[in-house]
Amino acid sequence: MDDSRYLRSATAPDRNAEQAARERQTRLTKPPGSLGRLEELAVRLAGWQGTVEPAVENVRVTVFAADHGVAAEGVSAFPQAVTTEMIRNFSRGGAAISVLAAELGAGLEVVDLGAVEEPGSLPGVRCARIAPGTGNLRREPAMTAEELTAALGAGRDAAERAVTEGAHLFVGGEMGIGNTTAATAVACGLTGRSPESLAGPGTGLDAHGVDRKAAVVRDALGLHVPDPAEPAEVLRRVGGFEIAALAGAYLAAAQRGLPALVDGFIASTAALAALRLNPGLADWLVFAHRSAEPGHAAVLEEADARPLLDLDMRLGEGSGAAVAVALLRQAAALHNRMATFEEAGIPS
Amino acid sequence: MDDSRYLRSATAPDRNAEQAARERQTRLTKPPGSLGRLEELAVRLAGWQGTVEPAVENVRVTVFAADHGVAAEGVSAFPQAVTTEMIRNFSRGGAAISVLAAELGAGLEVVDLGAVEEPGSLPGVRCARIAPGTGNLRREPAMTAEELTAALGAGRDAAERAVTEGAHLFVGGEMGIGNTTAATAVACGLTGRSPESLAGPGTGLDAHGVDRKAAVVRDALGLHVPDPAEPAEVLRRVGGFEIAALAGAYLAAAQRGLPALVDGFIASTAALAALRLNPGLADWLVFAHRSAEPGHAAVLEEADARPLLDLDMRLGEGSGAAVAVALLRQAAALHNRMATFEEAGIPS
Repeated sequence: MDDSRYLRSATAPDRNAEQAARERQTRLTKPPGSLGRLEELAVRLAGWQGTVEPAVENVRVTVFAADHGVAAEGVSAFPQAVTTEMIRNFSRGGAAISVLAAELGAGLEVVDLGAVEEPGSLPGVRCARIAPGTGNLRREPAMTAEELTAALGAGRDAAERAVTEGAHLFVGGEMGIGNTTAATAVACGLTGRSPESLAGPGTGLDAHGVDRKAAVVRDALGLHVPDPAEPAEVLRRVGGFEIAALAGAYLAAAQRGLPALVDGFIASTAALAALRLNPGLADWLVFAHRSAEPGHAAVLEEADARPLLDLDMRLGEGSGAAVAVALLRQAAALHNRMATFEEAGIPS
Repeated sequence: MDDSRYLRSATAPDRNAEQAARERQTRLTKPPGSLGRLEELAVRLAGWQGTVEPAVENVRVTVFAADHGVAAEGVSAFPQAVTTEMIRNFSRGGAAISVLAAELGAGLEVVDLGAVEEPGSLPGVRCARIAPGTGNLRREPAMTAEELTAALGAGRDAAERAVTEGAHLFVGGEMGIGNTTAATAVACGLTGRSPESLAGPGTGLDAHGVDRKAAVVRDALGLHVPDPAEPAEVLRRVGGFEIAALAGAYLAAAQRGLPALVDGFIASTAALAALRLNPGLADWLVFAHRSAEPGHAAVLEEADARPLLDLDMRLGEGSGAAVAVALLRQAAALHNRMATFEEAGIPS
């Protein structure tokens, strides 16, 4: 793969705006630091937008959907056809991310990167099909080099559309039966951790199913021998179209100065791969929540991330990130609209 | 004190509606349990409102403000006049809780229970002055029996107004220079824990100031010898008007079937006192966030509470609870508007 475009530096946040925001926070009518992480978010927003009065109005949510050859190994509690059923559900407004996006007044875009069953033309669903599912990572590489390039590019295109539409924030989600298995394999490949320490129930496996999933990932690692120093190759061999697309979206967003809220285990694994490709990305990511999926803790640790929320969610689709948008909006509202001590006539 | 009205049972949540909501959650298009604590909130909302499709539109925020005689002991980083300045700031819309209430479309009411400096007539500020501050708890009881009754009653009245106005949720806040000292004394009195283990920086004391605060509370405990079996007497001797008012509001709200979101250290201490008076209250409280104030962890433990958020906030005013309202709204939206498997034509 020619990954030079993904290695271009992320834009630098505006450090002057950050400093001005930090100073403003000390003048607002509250004890210094008493808004905790909401202050930190306001400062980051200022840096991203280059203004001391940032906004979080325009939020773009993109859900990347694709199937996984590894589903043939019986690693999910749901049949593969559910990927396409859920694409239809997103389109009709019935999925969790549909409801949350509507609540946020956010645009929701679904990108079909290759469900096994073609969903056909649906409102809000963009066709960017690469193949009807990836290869079965237990037996072969998940993707060819061309397929990886296409998946990363589909993510890049989504981020570019969000920039063009003036988004203040990008929320990426994923749907794909079997994708916690692929994410576990990617996380193992990037970190050298064991499948047994990272595999979890996903959509609802029992203990026996989790053991089987770990064994499938162990076989895959034995076959591909992924090298943590080659994150793109890890994605290609044991990832998935939607995982690579999320990585591509985060990288392109950071290069264009658009921050992204990272969802749970799968999105965070994509973000970790992207961070390994381009560490400057860290300035543009906010990790939204700590998933109940057990491997997430390890991925967050590797990404040096402390997420905003911890609500035992483990749904994917970008749902945890969408829930966290409210915190960024409240951080901005407080920062922009609270009175200063001077305005309130209070000696600070 | 005649506390019989505070001992009347809390209303029972509607267990049939809770069960119907729990069943609905299993039918929504997501892996069972995957919305984590948002599912639990939806079920509680259903029980509170006696309907499988609950709403969280109408939120009432009441901030109780009062001064503290113990401020004379130098236990705050801010001068006592700031209590009244902040009442003015609430009224003008410049405080954190003003901004958050406006964001929520929530009514904000401020109740002056006795700031030392009278704020005069201000929009949105209700005068219910009991005395110009409490007695200095290091040297005398904070309140007389009549004053405690008045403070509890002011809280009760606020909850009744919220019920009358059709509120779905009550958010109580507090403002009062010195009130982390009173709350620390109440928490010690209710739990038998030591002042040294509970005292914290409040609005911004340094280590020396925290030691002084702990010593003041230790003196107060020596003088009053509070009995954990007499929570109302603990409130009277070492509490504050706004702390007692919050306790009265929580109790009355639960008796009238109105749930309350509990803010940080001070509000949680009031909630703990109320729970000790009337354990049935537990069904009607949601603990909103974990404050950075160190004593809060102990109070949450004593209340057997796991708060929703952990954002290092320590501002008071009800601000942490106001931030958490978004989670209840999202929980209700997901619960009410997601498609079921049947509606989506997906075999579950």
